[in-house]
Amino acid sequence: MHIGILTGGGDCPGLNAVIRAVTLSLINECGAKVTGIERGFLGLLTRSSRPLDTAAVAGILAEGGTILGTHNKCDPFHYFGAAGADSSAAAMDYVRELGLDALVAIGGDGTMAIAHKFEAMGLPVVGVPKTIDNDLFCTERTFGFDSAVAVVAEALDRLATTGRSHGRVMIAETMGRYAGWIALEGGMAGGAEVILIPEIPFSVEAVAERCRERAAHGLSTIISIAEGAAPEGGGLTIQRTIADSPDPLRLGGVGNWLQQQLEPLVDCEVRTTLLGHIQRGGSPTPFDRVLATRFGYHAAQLVEAGQFARMVALQGDAVVSVPISEVAGKNRLVPRDHELVRAARGIGVSLGEK
Amino acid sequence: MHIGILTGGGDCPGLNAVIRAVTLSLINECGAKVTGIERGFLGLLTRSSRPLDTAAVAGILAEGGTILGTHNKCDPFHYFGAAGADSSAAAMDYVRELGLDALVAIGGDGTMAIAHKFEAMGLPVVGVPKTIDNDLFCTERTFGFDSAVAVVAEALDRLATTGRSHGRVMIAETMGRYAGWIALEGGMAGGAEVILIPEIPFSVEAVAERCRERAAHGLSTIISIAEGAAPEGGGLTIQRTIADSPDPLRLGGVGNWLQQQLEPLVDCEVRTTLLGHIQRGGSPTPFDRVLATRFGYHAAQLVEAGQFARMVALQGDAVVSVPISEVAGKNRLVPRDHELVRAARGIGVSLGEK
Amino acid sequence: MHIGILTGGGDCPGLNAVIRAVTLSLINECGAKVTGIERGFLGLLTRSSRPLDTAAVAGILAEGGTILGTHNKCDPFHYFGAAGADSSAAAMDYVRELGLDALVAIGGDGTMAIAHKFEAMGLPVVGVPKTIDNDLFCTERTFGFDSAVAVVAEALDRLATTGRSHGRVMIAETMGRYAGWIALEGGMAGGAEVILIPEIPFSVEAVAERCRERAAHGLSTIISIAEGAAPEGGGLTIQRTIADSPDPLRLGGVGNWLQQQLEPLVDCEVRTTLLGHIQRGGSPTPFDRVLATRFGYHAAQLVEAGQFARMVALQGDAVVSVPISEVAGKNRLVPRDHELVRAARGIGVSLGEK
Amino acid sequence: MHIGILTGGGDCPGLNAVIRAVTLSLINECGAKVTGIERGFLGLLTRSSRPLDTAAVAGILAEGGTILGTHNKCDPFHYFGAAGADSSAAAMDYVRELGLDALVAIGGDGTMAIAHKFEAMGLPVVGVPKTIDNDLFCTERTFGFDSAVAVVAEALDRLATTGRSHGRVMIAETMGRYAGWIALEGGMAGGAEVILIPEIPFSVEAVAERCRERAAHGLSTIISIAEGAAPEGGGLTIQRTIADSPDPLRLGGVGNWLQQQLEPLVDCEVRTTLLGHIQRGGSPTPFDRVLATRFGYHAAQLVEAGQFARMVALQGDAVVSVPISEVAGKNRLVPRDHELVRAARGIGVSLGEK
Repeated sequence: MHIGILTGGGDCPGLNAVIRAVTLSLINECGAKVTGIERGFLGLLTRSSRPLDTAAVAGILAEGGTILGTHNKCDPFHYFGAAGADSSAAAMDYVRELGLDALVAIGGDGTMAIAHKFEAMGLPVVGVPKTIDNDLFCTERTFGFDSAVAVVAEALDRLATTGRSHGRVMIAETMGRYAGWIALEGGMAGGAEVILIPEIPFSVEAVAERCRERAAHGLSTIISIAEGAAPEGGGLTIQRTIADSPDPLRLGGVGNWLQQQLEPLVDCEVRTTLLGHIQRGGSPTPFDRVLATRFGYHAAQLVEAGQFARMVALQGDAVVSVPISEVAGKNRLVPRDHELVRAARGIGVSLGEK
Repeated sequence: MHIGILTGGGDCPGLNAVIRAVTLSLINECGAKVTGIERGFLGLLTRSSRPLDTAAVAGILAEGGTILGTHNKCDPFHYFGAAGADSSAAAMDYVRELGLDALVAIGGDGTMAIAHKFEAMGLPVVGVPKTIDNDLFCTERTFGFDSAVAVVAEALDRLATTGRSHGRVMIAETMGRYAGWIALEGGMAGGAEVILIPEIPFSVEAVAERCRERAAHGLSTIISIAEGAAPEGGGLTIQRTIADSPDPLRLGGVGNWLQQQLEPLVDCEVRTTLLGHIQRGGSPTPFDRVLATRFGYHAAQLVEAGQFARMVALQGDAVVSVPISEVAGKNRLVPRDHELVRAARGIGVSLGEK
Repeated sequence: MHIGILTGGGDCPGLNAVIRAVTLSLINECGAKVTGIERGFLGLLTRSSRPLDTAAVAGILAEGGTILGTHNKCDPFHYFGAAGADSSAAAMDYVRELGLDALVAIGGDGTMAIAHKFEAMGLPVVGVPKTIDNDLFCTERTFGFDSAVAVVAEALDRLATTGRSHGRVMIAETMGRYAGWIALEGGMAGGAEVILIPEIPFSVEAVAERCRERAAHGLSTIISIAEGAAPEGGGLTIQRTIADSPDPLRLGGVGNWLQQQLEPLVDCEVRTTLLGHIQRGGSPTPFDRVLATRFGYHAAQLVEAGQFARMVALQGDAVVSVPISEVAGKNRLVPRDHELVRAARGIGVSLGEK
Repeated sequence: MHIGILTGGGDCPGLNAVIRAVTLSLINECGAKVTGIERGFLGLLTRSSRPLDTAAVAGILAEGGTILGTHNKCDPFHYFGAAGADSSAAAMDYVRELGLDALVAIGGDGTMAIAHKFEAMGLPVVGVPKTIDNDLFCTERTFGFDSAVAVVAEALDRLATTGRSHGRVMIAETMGRYAGWIALEGGMAGGAEVILIPEIPFSVEAVAERCRERAAHGLSTIISIAEGAAPEGGGLTIQRTIADSPDPLRLGGVGNWLQQQLEPLVDCEVRTTLLGHIQRGGSPTPFDRVLATRFGYHAAQLVEAGQFARMVALQGDAVVSVPISEVAGKNRLVPRDHELVRAARGIGVSLGEK
């Protein structure tokens, strides 16, 4: 048996732990030959791959990123871009040349969609879900998310000491264009008093009111805001304001926009930090190392059992699998009455609602 | 409404996060008055308590331990020890004097059993499960466990660099007298090659064999062993060997015992580290801060709804509640065919089985 | 003896450790009464202060920020702003009302200058240097700097995994408007291949060349750039480019500017992270806790010995003191042939020189 | 030019950073060929070495331990043990066979002594000091020490939360058989109330008195004790007590011994943690990465300049060099009136003196 592995889309802590677990499980339990495809699906076109054995995956459990490299734009069916040529036949030529019996594809929504198409061309596929944003359908939690939340929480711990020392409002802008999981869990873990997520449009006045109340008691305020959060009335407001801004240097995202809106409304300094790429790099948390290992082992089990066209998933506390076709094109957003949202409201966190 | 809160048993990261969430939720949602009982049930006898309000719980989310203090031996029904006098009536006097309408008791098995008895005496109780060992019945995960696993994983990361530099076998003894969860998850997260837990008696020869195989390839070996792990034939072997040992200074636990057994069987140095108390202290991980907050909020919800004699629990991804009576006196051990045990075997980790 | 303490300027990890050490030393060694002035010199005008005793400083050693609060604009001699009124007489009234025999002022360049003027008005002063940027004259190292370097190094560790996975150039913009110490030490600790500091104007082409060389070998590049770094020809180039930019949303600082310049010159993606406020918040590193404690103890010694108008300083491995007058208005920049700069060049780091 | 590098003695965070800096500097500045000798001086006897180039040292800056391996007993002049045969001629044969022009030896006291003998046999040597204990003569600070202090400080932070929650005395036993630097700086950084070091014999009664005073105010006590600390009257007391102990399982070192002595003298629980090997493993702190890089660069400079028989050293803030002969056989102990000892006393820390 000869199995290929690739990692697609943006990098994420835990990818190496999955690569390691898939490789070791396939070798130990099936005596399989394992080959890593380099830079995601691009490697099928550039014909770049390398053998994976026990030595190749030694010591990578705790390493961030992916030893195979990744690429977040390459789709062999549209190479490159939506108007690109279909190069999938060339990719399949390389698959046949390598003699791959199946492919384990680790990636997000886009990777699963492409993997699904290769399945239809005769390449059996098992998917492993990857999304720092935790917004993939059918799985309650994905590796990398806990690591991102930990980075946000540590950053809020740091910003809080500055906020308290200066009596400031401190804004931290987190990842999350469509789903607010990182801002929500990171904000809860970091003790934010205001959490703004894409799923719940916020009122600038309500946020300002909360800051003023706290300032009146001599307290600073920490705001955790997802990059995709938007005020009532929508993102348009932000775009327009930015375009009209006389001071482009200070801008950068919704966090900076919110700072500009708040400054005239509150009687204290406001400062913004855009957390950016540090949220997706670095060593995975122990939680993510274990989850990624469980995912990788389960993927190898599916390969061994010949159960293809399925993606590994976490449901409740169990690792299961679901048809890849169910996953594609859907996002798992934060429900407005999610338990954690209610808990946030319960302990007095403002979600920016009037 | 006037609600008491206490923390019982050993300390654990996340206790303060629960105290904060219960207090804030009760104040915000019910306008309740909240009182903290100091040093667990002992405070009911020494009549030690303090008011808890928003200011009192500010900034404690990320702090380890418990601001209320705790005590791991005080049982008012047997004060002190099994032969002790029943002082529960005095405790109830203080409860009535304070005018408590209900008590939120945060603790483990023992705390739940005591709480259950007070319930029978007319004090409505809601329980919040606490156990660093993750072995409480009815709940899949408890706060503090992720923090303990993180400490173990970080320690293994450190020990591994020494092991590799010297070509040694490095043994790390973790908490877990009856259940092996910490050694298992910590070992998986820290990349241990051998994991020994109380639920699976180990063969010294099988462990030595794994170390020798690795040494033959120039590789060091990391062993994660729970304090309650024992060789086939049982703990007696260890006790006897320790009693006969000519060099008591080197002893200390099963980790040191294993070192002495392994040294003549492997052709390299063996070193042991007893991780000890650092596993239960310090700031909770972001995961534990969120879980503890969810537990605290849910406990407040139960109080508000008048649902007493119940303990908060995590089942699947949902926070639910179960009758306290179901919890007492039972331990949740690691099943020998648990998914994580199978994953460990799958990636080539030895569990010490022949 | 009655001594006042205040913290001025921006917050910095280790301020609380100094406050604790000064307070405990004065109480233990002189039996002094200690009062904390709140929010820097502003507290002398708003008449805000609080007693400091053993209990008040318990547990603050590891806490970031300052329990006394701070203010980075208040100068009682120009209240507010350069055109402001001189309120120093009112401040001295409060000093006399409190009955302060001396003041320990913890702060940077600005704080030392103001302290020096109060000295002239009859208030004996001891200064403790504080600057996250490590650019204060007469002292080789200040607390807070090691903590900032640690944050930068950890961020570079994280960015490097993303850089390697995607084959990208990753830019991290650090603090340091005038002096490049943070970018230099943080970059060296984080393994940056390019380090750009204000003291050495850089050539965009030289930076691009280094990135291209590395990309040709399949290697990503990490760039550590101080916020005050500028290309040859000066900052003007940047200002003009930003003003003409059609896409203000992407801008933000010299890091983003450099990204725009590099993108057309290198054949790979470039990403920028502005580290911002997380560099100055949070718990001090153990090194900084010890250094701050030494500084605080030495300041108390100076007070006890009646040696005023002096600032504590680190020279070699010894804590000494220098006249405050020598410090004011001077910056300690990175010499172009500093040992660490030569070491950087020696191991192949580019400083952006042609 | 062909230069060999080896690491001797116990492992230490920062060894890889030195190897990297020496290698890169020699390649960049001299175009030298560099060879790593494996497992310390043992590699000269087993004829084990590997080429070191830019690729070989990529990514090792932040890794703990040494990629070359080490051995803490091998002395080619006494192979093995003091009664062993002199194998130095065989070692020199291998040196000549490799064609080494010089050797960079990274290690402690023992490594420097051996290196010095090889120098006399005609192999030019440059030494780089390594000691986790910071007790090497002629250098004020060595890499690895800051990392060890950080581990101790973090452990004390953790133990303190348990101590406070239970009202306990918490003892942490650190490394330091002869010199107390780790216990002293780690204790100061971790806020210990009692610090016991080999250089200052302690009185059990004085320690107990401090614990009782604190307990009387409801406070717990943290004790940082070096493994080599001993009570007045010397270590004999300890050895005798241990030999007579009826409960060998609880013993293990001076920390456990102190616990047994304190328990009858204080009215609270006492718990001990032996920090052990985690103090010397794992990723070096940013401070140590920079210091190790400076040392490595300076060693390469010495090689380039033909300045042999010298050891790199840190004096004040400058990296300098000293004759290796000055270093051998001397320990740098903590002076009883060292500034940090005085600061400890000043802020009220007990050093166990009556």
